[in-house]
Amino acid sequence: MSITRPRGFRATGVAAGIKSTGAHDLALVVNDGPRDTAAAVFTANRVKAAPVLWSQQAVADGRARAVVLNSGGANACTGPDGFADTHRTAEHAAEELGLSSQDVLVCSTGLIGERLPIDALLSGVTTAAGALAAGPDADADAARAIMTTDSVPKTATATTASGVVVGGIAKGAGMLAPQLATMLVVLTTDADVDAATADAVLRAATATTFDRVDSDACMSTNDTVILLASGASGITPGADELAGAVREVAADLARQLVADAEGASHDVHVVVRAATTERAALAVAREIARSNLVKAAVFGNDPNWGRIVAAAGCVPEEVAPFAVEDLSVSVNGVEVCRAGGAHRDRSEVDMTPRETLIEVDLGAGTATGDIWTNDLTHDYVEENSAYSS
Amino acid sequence: MSITRPRGFRATGVAAGIKSTGAHDLALVVNDGPRDTAAAVFTANRVKAAPVLWSQQAVADGRARAVVLNSGGANACTGPDGFADTHRTAEHAAEELGLSSQDVLVCSTGLIGERLPIDALLSGVTTAAGALAAGPDADADAARAIMTTDSVPKTATATTASGVVVGGIAKGAGMLAPQLATMLVVLTTDADVDAATADAVLRAATATTFDRVDSDACMSTNDTVILLASGASGITPGADELAGAVREVAADLARQLVADAEGASHDVHVVVRAATTERAALAVAREIARSNLVKAAVFGNDPNWGRIVAAAGCVPEEVAPFAVEDLSVSVNGVEVCRAGGAHRDRSEVDMTPRETLIEVDLGAGTATGDIWTNDLTHDYVEENSAYSS
Repeated sequence: MSITRPRGFRATGVAAGIKSTGAHDLALVVNDGPRDTAAAVFTANRVKAAPVLWSQQAVADGRARAVVLNSGGANACTGPDGFADTHRTAEHAAEELGLSSQDVLVCSTGLIGERLPIDALLSGVTTAAGALAAGPDADADAARAIMTTDSVPKTATATTASGVVVGGIAKGAGMLAPQLATMLVVLTTDADVDAATADAVLRAATATTFDRVDSDACMSTNDTVILLASGASGITPGADELAGAVREVAADLARQLVADAEGASHDVHVVVRAATTERAALAVAREIARSNLVKAAVFGNDPNWGRIVAAAGCVPEEVAPFAVEDLSVSVNGVEVCRAGGAHRDRSEVDMTPRETLIEVDLGAGTATGDIWTNDLTHDYVEENSAYSS
Repeated sequence: MSITRPRGFRATGVAAGIKSTGAHDLALVVNDGPRDTAAAVFTANRVKAAPVLWSQQAVADGRARAVVLNSGGANACTGPDGFADTHRTAEHAAEELGLSSQDVLVCSTGLIGERLPIDALLSGVTTAAGALAAGPDADADAARAIMTTDSVPKTATATTASGVVVGGIAKGAGMLAPQLATMLVVLTTDADVDAATADAVLRAATATTFDRVDSDACMSTNDTVILLASGASGITPGADELAGAVREVAADLARQLVADAEGASHDVHVVVRAATTERAALAVAREIARSNLVKAAVFGNDPNWGRIVAAAGCVPEEVAPFAVEDLSVSVNGVEVCRAGGAHRDRSEVDMTPRETLIEVDLGAGTATGDIWTNDLTHDYVEENSAYSS
């Protein structure tokens, strides 16, 4: 149950033949209203795929009726021809659904630099338009169709006190970095809200969820998170109420992305406390989360706090003021470093759980920030070297 | 032949018992003058090991007579006790050599956060002081004694037109990042120069050699590069002449560090051209050199230009202005991306050589910058996860 659990949505996923494997590779999500509120956030990478360029301008008016998503090709670095492919996709979906192409968003994911098999994609859109279904189980195929190296489909839902429902699907298993990951996410809600509210709610949710996932410090060309609101519940929840539910679904999906990151054997939660500002805390957390030496140590079940402290020391003082002699580091609850030096013995740390908690106290202030990452494993190297993706 | 090839130097390396393996682990280098000119650059990491803190102040007067270097322990994050250990090391070496402790520099490398076995170290200093030798072959043991995960000792020499000789030894095989790597380097010369000249020559040389090596984006707590000048040649070369020879030796050693980086199967040279400034070129080169996805692709012999372009796109526009549609990328001489899109087929690229050349043209200006890195391999993961280092 995910994006069609809120009232007012239909979805489906089909095998359009974009992937040579014959797997599902095209998803279609339709908002039947009565409202057509939409908001979206996109990758901060300056190299933006054609579907990102299209969807940015299409959603600028705060409205959208449908989203076409494909795996099997990113349609990035494909020039004007690639943009024309995305435009045709939106126009074709609009014709099939009786909409304006400006109300159709497009997302793509897969290898950069290759044109999509546009004929297969367009006939897939036709097939999908005929297969759309509503109801709580209609969305399983959609979640499956956007998978790339994901091992499982990722779905989540939440319900607010006033009865508004939020659902979401996500794909992403690598190239996960703040602002954003290699991720496509569609969130739906039957709340009756305007575009400004939807935009504010979505940005607040992504800032503390998807933007805090940093699997390998690599930011993709295609990242897109879309929120569609149908208004079909007839309920206009308080902004905080809706924000809470959207954040809950986003956090759930973000956590699933980390758990399914390519080749990972540990999910690593880096929490930095007692920083002067949240920005300082996040900068230190991100530097630790991006250290290959820290990540390899976690893979080796080694609570190597020296590497953690060394990573923290790479953050410029103007970004994160702290004194080395005030640093303490705990790994899975054991304070292995206090006052910048060795404290409890590292052999006390149990590194066997899948989740590793690294807590750093900077002793400099009261702000906190956290980042989720993964360990650096043989399987990560294998998945990212053995074939193009 | 390395640091004792220039006249006026003695050196040795001994097994002091710091390493449990019984391998050589302590080196001593002595400048017999007549001059005692010295300069040094140190890690930019805010977490600085005790020997870095000691040597920074000891070399501040531009003079030094001896360097004690140990492997088997970094003496970092060891607090006041660790600093006292370094101080005792300098004082003991000074006594053995009839010097002031302020003229003795200390370098350490190994695991962070553990105290050194100071008694073994001090008796090793005594042994080393008695084993010092001059001449072109006296330095082999010194180069060997500073090795950690290095597979080979690293040495280099150069001679200038006027007959001045420069020699160097280095250790380092991981945690290689700008400013600087996990590296200890001692350079010697028999040039007759003052401290200001030595400092300028050393900083110019490291800026374009060791600072451009970025094996894994991890900056260590102990990096030190020292230049000692004995004046024993009686020759005062032109500043450019000496700078050229010091740079040549530094570049040679830096290249050896890359070639011996932990677990690497490719040395990757990232050259960014047609940037608005050198800083912009270096920022783009560093982002590409630090991308785990690019590095894993190189390991897989995959000229995946999409990952290269995506990495370039992560550099903020204010740091490196360029337009995506002006980007071109060549891998090993084959222009796989032109005008931001696919150009020659990636199958034309021969990725089998150890050295991989990635050239990016930003089409934005005339400045160039380059970074050396390595690929991301199973052996890198193994060496950095299987044991603490």
